[in-house]
Amino acid sequence: MTSSKPKVAAVIVAAGQGLRMGGLDKVLSPLGDEPILLRTTRPFQDSPAVSQIVIVIAGEKEEMCRQLIGGPAWSKVSHICIGGPRRQDSVAEGLKRLNRFDYVMIHDGARPLVTADLIARALDAARETGAAVAAVPVTDTIKRADGDLTVLETLSRQDLWAVQTPQVFRFDVIQIAHLQDAEEATDDASLVERLGHKVKLFMGAYDNIKITTPDDLIVAENILRQRGGLA
Amino acid sequence: MTSSKPKVAAVIVAAGQGLRMGGLDKVLSPLGDEPILLRTTRPFQDSPAVSQIVIVIAGEKEEMCRQLIGGPAWSKVSHICIGGPRRQDSVAEGLKRLNRFDYVMIHDGARPLVTADLIARALDAARETGAAVAAVPVTDTIKRADGDLTVLETLSRQDLWAVQTPQVFRFDVIQIAHLQDAEEATDDASLVERLGHKVKLFMGAYDNIKITTPDDLIVAENILRQRGGLA
Repeated sequence: MTSSKPKVAAVIVAAGQGLRMGGLDKVLSPLGDEPILLRTTRPFQDSPAVSQIVIVIAGEKEEMCRQLIGGPAWSKVSHICIGGPRRQDSVAEGLKRLNRFDYVMIHDGARPLVTADLIARALDAARETGAAVAAVPVTDTIKRADGDLTVLETLSRQDLWAVQTPQVFRFDVIQIAHLQDAEEATDDASLVERLGHKVKLFMGAYDNIKITTPDDLIVAENILRQRGGLA
Repeated sequence: MTSSKPKVAAVIVAAGQGLRMGGLDKVLSPLGDEPILLRTTRPFQDSPAVSQIVIVIAGEKEEMCRQLIGGPAWSKVSHICIGGPRRQDSVAEGLKRLNRFDYVMIHDGARPLVTADLIARALDAARETGAAVAAVPVTDTIKRADGDLTVLETLSRQDLWAVQTPQVFRFDVIQIAHLQDAEEATDDASLVERLGHKVKLFMGAYDNIKITTPDDLIVAENILRQRGGLA
């Protein structure tokens, strides 16, 4: 690593099916006056640290996405590509479009409330270990149960974190992680952990929510309104 | 246990400080046209299975609570009593007001979206093992980290459950559990588990949310509106 400004790309993963949105398309649903995906992508477009953006989308949304995200306002978006069957396949598709970066930020397309501050802190954290993940302390009581729903244990909450994105990795580390013949993983850091590479958490934000249900959209609108970003 | 109808009491625990509500009082905040605590208590008042209700409240809210909850509409509320420093101390205060029951349902005062269906299913589940806890599958990726925020492991999500209330226990079991000189516990079932008593989960509801932040109030209003319970 050099002391010069690192070269950073972002992969926005928006290829999920949105099954819990009751038929609504998740990333193209409006949040306030524009589709979720535009709100998700803009902080990366606006970040001085990020030089290239790849958006990974489900095949049937590709045309719509190209119509929405094009022109000088989205100058950093180099590729809109089609995802694979699993989340990690979609991320791998995005990574294939990138060359010679120092870091890659991977971010859920359905987390439109990401901020410039969170992006900056993600990069700071990644410079320390090469793998940094936004997370917030778990507030629920979590129990482990067997298939018969008998409780096996109540987990100690104090060391549990609910993982978010952005997740930022050294480019070589995440490339190798995605070359593994890997079991399904619910986040990219898991793949990096399987390599034995150290992953560090940094404090995410409780309002950096993932839009999964129609109720989440209402919460997101309220958060935007409080931030003054919505009429 | 007999085959006759079991005698059931409910303890509503509303003694928390509501620190994340930004100065708003949590259980006395309006949800739609009435305070959260009334909405929380009503399904237990209306349940044919429940014969007595004890409400545990923070000292400074006792008078307000007595003004709100009194008269024939709240005929089953036998006591409004003051909680202790920890959640389990508050529950213990409530249990002291009860005599000769078969089961006790313990419910968070800040979960006003509990339904008659959930109460009925909670009782069915408790009759099986004497200890039954509402819970929903965890949807976040959960990692365990050390004090330095280095990830130790990503937990297998498939056997993890986020615990809710109601939690229902055989009266003798929960009484003994609360007589232990116990470490702090975030739910009542943990105390029962420490006795070595079997605890079973039953499927709660994702919309049985706990009101912890002002955003949660907005979600709750939306859920009530969808249910037709709010103009």
